[in-house]
Amino acid sequence: MLLPFFNPSGVAIIGASSDPHKLGHGVVRNLIDYRYPGPIYPVNPKAGEILSRRCYPSIDQVPDPVDLAVVIVPAPAVAGVIAQCGRRGIRHAIVVSGGFGETGAQGRQREEELVKTANQHKMRLIGPNCIGTIDTHTPINTTFVVGMPQAGDISFLSQSGAMCAVVIDWARGAGVGFSRIASLGNQIDVNEVEMLTAMADDPQTRVITAYIEGVADGRAFMAAAVEAARRKPVVVLKGGQGKSGAKAVASHTGALAGSAEAYDAAFRHSGILRADTMEQLFDWARVLAWQPLPEGKRVAVLTNAGGPAILAVDALEAAGLELSPLSQDTCDYLRERLPGASSIGNPVDVLAGSGPGLYAVALDALLSDPTVDAALVIQAPQDWFLPASLAEVVAEVASVHRKPVMASIMGLASVDQALAILHRRRVPNFAFPERAASALAAMIARRNWLEMPAEQPDVLNNIDIETARRALEQADFAAALSAYGISMPPTRPAATAGAAIAAAGEIGYPVALKLDSPDFSHKSDVGGVVLNLEDELAIQAAFDEIIAAAKAAEPGAAIRGVLVQKMLSGGQEVIVGTRRDPQFGPLALVGSGGVEVELQRDVATGIAPLTDTQANRLLDATLAGTRLKGWRGIPPADRPAAIQALRRLAQIACDFPEIEELEINPLYVLPAGQGAYALDIRGVKKEA
Amino acid sequence: MLLPFFNPSGVAIIGASSDPHKLGHGVVRNLIDYRYPGPIYPVNPKAGEILSRRCYPSIDQVPDPVDLAVVIVPAPAVAGVIAQCGRRGIRHAIVVSGGFGETGAQGRQREEELVKTANQHKMRLIGPNCIGTIDTHTPINTTFVVGMPQAGDISFLSQSGAMCAVVIDWARGAGVGFSRIASLGNQIDVNEVEMLTAMADDPQTRVITAYIEGVADGRAFMAAAVEAARRKPVVVLKGGQGKSGAKAVASHTGALAGSAEAYDAAFRHSGILRADTMEQLFDWARVLAWQPLPEGKRVAVLTNAGGPAILAVDALEAAGLELSPLSQDTCDYLRERLPGASSIGNPVDVLAGSGPGLYAVALDALLSDPTVDAALVIQAPQDWFLPASLAEVVAEVASVHRKPVMASIMGLASVDQALAILHRRRVPNFAFPERAASALAAMIARRNWLEMPAEQPDVLNNIDIETARRALEQADFAAALSAYGISMPPTRPAATAGAAIAAAGEIGYPVALKLDSPDFSHKSDVGGVVLNLEDELAIQAAFDEIIAAAKAAEPGAAIRGVLVQKMLSGGQEVIVGTRRDPQFGPLALVGSGGVEVELQRDVATGIAPLTDTQANRLLDATLAGTRLKGWRGIPPADRPAAIQALRRLAQIACDFPEIEELEINPLYVLPAGQGAYALDIRGVKKEA
Repeated sequence: MLLPFFNPSGVAIIGASSDPHKLGHGVVRNLIDYRYPGPIYPVNPKAGEILSRRCYPSIDQVPDPVDLAVVIVPAPAVAGVIAQCGRRGIRHAIVVSGGFGETGAQGRQREEELVKTANQHKMRLIGPNCIGTIDTHTPINTTFVVGMPQAGDISFLSQSGAMCAVVIDWARGAGVGFSRIASLGNQIDVNEVEMLTAMADDPQTRVITAYIEGVADGRAFMAAAVEAARRKPVVVLKGGQGKSGAKAVASHTGALAGSAEAYDAAFRHSGILRADTMEQLFDWARVLAWQPLPEGKRVAVLTNAGGPAILAVDALEAAGLELSPLSQDTCDYLRERLPGASSIGNPVDVLAGSGPGLYAVALDALLSDPTVDAALVIQAPQDWFLPASLAEVVAEVASVHRKPVMASIMGLASVDQALAILHRRRVPNFAFPERAASALAAMIARRNWLEMPAEQPDVLNNIDIETARRALEQADFAAALSAYGISMPPTRPAATAGAAIAAAGEIGYPVALKLDSPDFSHKSDVGGVVLNLEDELAIQAAFDEIIAAAKAAEPGAAIRGVLVQKMLSGGQEVIVGTRRDPQFGPLALVGSGGVEVELQRDVATGIAPLTDTQANRLLDATLAGTRLKGWRGIPPADRPAAIQALRRLAQIACDFPEIEELEINPLYVLPAGQGAYALDIRGVKKEA
Repeated sequence: MLLPFFNPSGVAIIGASSDPHKLGHGVVRNLIDYRYPGPIYPVNPKAGEILSRRCYPSIDQVPDPVDLAVVIVPAPAVAGVIAQCGRRGIRHAIVVSGGFGETGAQGRQREEELVKTANQHKMRLIGPNCIGTIDTHTPINTTFVVGMPQAGDISFLSQSGAMCAVVIDWARGAGVGFSRIASLGNQIDVNEVEMLTAMADDPQTRVITAYIEGVADGRAFMAAAVEAARRKPVVVLKGGQGKSGAKAVASHTGALAGSAEAYDAAFRHSGILRADTMEQLFDWARVLAWQPLPEGKRVAVLTNAGGPAILAVDALEAAGLELSPLSQDTCDYLRERLPGASSIGNPVDVLAGSGPGLYAVALDALLSDPTVDAALVIQAPQDWFLPASLAEVVAEVASVHRKPVMASIMGLASVDQALAILHRRRVPNFAFPERAASALAAMIARRNWLEMPAEQPDVLNNIDIETARRALEQADFAAALSAYGISMPPTRPAATAGAAIAAAGEIGYPVALKLDSPDFSHKSDVGGVVLNLEDELAIQAAFDEIIAAAKAAEPGAAIRGVLVQKMLSGGQEVIVGTRRDPQFGPLALVGSGGVEVELQRDVATGIAPLTDTQANRLLDATLAGTRLKGWRGIPPADRPAAIQALRRLAQIACDFPEIEELEINPLYVLPAGQGAYALDIRGVKKEA
């Protein structure tokens, strides 16, 4: 559907200029210089000819074929121009002009007018305030930026025009080809979701890269990303991680699963590889585009020097990769051929005196070894042979195997030619070998995600949605959770000490007393919780203590009395929580519970709902998960019950959009087979 | 003392060759090509002339002045050559030849012979198996590596010759000057400690950088590093972090404070800035050499585009830096001068259309602002003006202020000239702005270290060394600690349940019973600890339970009975431990205690002994330290008592080298003012 932005039948440039300093000149120049094969129609009421092309006074006079307009006129004139295009039958426009939403109230008003005009004429717009599109295969370059990457198979979409300029310059300098580049600008129509799909649909694109600062509709983004990532790797650099707005939050979940964690969870869920820096984005994209995914994580390192190989090994191990053990056959083979003092373990060190021939022999042997999943070839600067010769050899040997090969022909002064050869032959080179590690780890992450079963959440049974709905209307979160199969231990409200004693008689000793008041969210902080009460006297004393403490902490607070709760023992405390993220909808969090959750921050956040596999994986990412399996003196707990509680909590958040936050802390997980109980529940409903 | 290695009065090259493919040719070539100003004497029994220099048949015939020999002869001949040099009166030699300790037993034997010969003639040796030295100011280049960095003020010492070649190539390509480079090889004489001091003594060196894989004498290294770091920044890249040898360890401290942690602690202690990658080493060295240290951590970012600035801000915040708030004056000043749509907050965005003039005005204003400690200037690729013009402007404005300025003139294809200008004028440029963050953080780390009071550990009073000595002879760690002022709660051994009941009567209820056996190091794991016993019946039951559990867990274990210990309550559990590291001597560790130490890994490791400041800083680096200050419901604990226990434990480890490991877990820290008690003590003495 977005195809005319990348492969139009003809392009009109409205606001074309004969002044080489104007953007409207640069666009015409780029269309011509980078050999757009269709007709190019400059439009400008004044100019007769621009760069030897006939210039049309208005879009009405432009002949067929034309189905894309690039608009570079002052902001107040844009809507009028778009209306003209619409009447002329053009359905696609790139609005380069700035002066819209990015500049304040008046700009936002212009933006609304523009949207209306485009809708009237059923037009699709990219921008405004963008630098346009590039497709190196068409070829077409609708930007005014000097320079164009060579044809390749990496696409890049960006919410920052400057980042497109960075990519273009880097791609040219590094000799890395791109398929498409799209600058999205203010995204009043085409946004990152549709563009992601367009890149996924592009047969020339093997890897999608993106710079994004935010998404408008998180669930739509995730759906598009999952679709795209199933077909090709998606690497995203997210700008604006910084301090999240210091919004008041009512629960631990609110404090621990903020916007940054939501993006993390959404990206992980969707199979998006998240780069931390621009350098990683470029490193990963090259490797993913040019080399096959490794079958496993065992790497062979081939080097001519110890130091750089040691640093590479440190980085590989830190990234979770392993050194291949090498088979005996490979070692024997290498020992016969390499210099006597060579190190035949992994890393294989051919020593400073060896040349491209021995590198070739050794690399071929390593790639033939079934214990090797990937190879990294390092060359410290030397003066015996041209680095270019090694580049030829590495690229050629790599091409006859089906395993990823990366190079680190090191240096800056001496390696230009080698770099050009390697990149032409699709072997990524890194100036420093450590950078290869994160790139390889990204490949492994992609393989793991692809191999995850595409499991749908199985239906959770014994859920009574109607009862939960009625309970939520009363903001009775405990009853709602109970309807979802998450129980509290037997609990009775008691307004007086006498009532508390009677309640304890019913449910059986020992019991805990907890302040019953809507005005305290952290009861234990104010002395509102007393545990392990064994008899009537203890209850009497605890009741008085709690009420006095609450009154002292907040005079005038509404105090209903206490809750008397059956005291459980021998379990472990975890926290499970859910929060509705404005972008990504309900998130689910699990981790170490108790009063120290925010100190320990031992939590993992995922996107609700959760399959059994996903819930298990979240729990596995925390110490709490390790502890539930049994740790030292602590016996194994009922982990399946904890998983059920987590999944059911995630489910209720999905079923009831009015739940803003809902948290169980602690969820008390008893020894294996004995279940898990919510000891304390805290919830926030959206104001109606 | 090592001066003749960098500035000799004359150099003899023994093993010089007229064959351009031989190392012995390259050394002569480099001495000549890179303009060593003293006499150059090739020595070779065969050759008459090498590169138009007269060649001497043996070192005996070489005339004065000569005080440095570079030796490139086959390994078996080296010791003989060194003896000849010694007899000729040469006291310094660089042995380039390989074939020594790195090749096995025979090589090690040759090495020993070489050491003996050198000692006989009071000679100093660098190598063998090294690539020599460079001093760009003398100038001299004793290596065979093609190319030499321009003169500068960064020195580099390396335990890997290949890393020297990497540095040389990178320095040439990036236009970064170096003062000295030294390849240390097998270090049979001159090692990293002495070389570090030589670099510190070099008046041309402003920053010392190093690649090291290990240190022979950790305490000597730390002493030299502290001396050096007081005078100039020391940046070290440590190769070989990997998995530490899976040595069996008897304590948590052994498992948590391994060799990697020892290096971390030693580097931190010595003010060494530890780079994680080669790229960081180079990034940091440039910034530290060329720019003044910032007064504080508030950074101004000046940019022509949003996206790259957002990424820079993310990276700055992640590295612990802050955005300067900017004064109202600065904002007013900028608003008058910059385009209307410019963003005047921090980052200051001059927009894509602004050129070097407005950059200059804005940078000058920012550097004049008292709220700005450092500035980062970003330029996304643009086509309006040459990046070189911006480079000139940034360098010039930076030079009239006394604050650090870094540039990120982005791009690869378009920025060669700009990079050359910036580096010539000592403003570091980064291809990606994120990289500036860690460099600036390194500067802040250095400032913090320099500003730390140079406090000597004050004498700890009430220590009875003699009593401790006698106790340690009996391996009675509890008594030894008691002599150092660290007490256990009142504790009595009891061989029978009756004796335990009697003991409890003496020390008062409640009590804990603990298995008394040398054969169990984690008692609670086997059911060997029962807490909170309130009466005789409970003691009887607990005694039987413990003995039965111990017998079941390890039939045949030596079981002495139980220890009856006064039960304390209301405190917090921390771990304090010490371990003797083979390189760095006693380390001290502190963190969250209890049975979960190895799960939580909430510990920090330092070098013993500890000053009060150091001990506090260690504790502050852990959650345990936060908790001791009081956290939510938990009242503040006696933190000074915990600090005393940590310092006293560190002290006993320093006083008694026979202590291999000594650990208190838990150290039970009572509420403020009530002290701290060792509940369990575990120690390992070196076998006599």
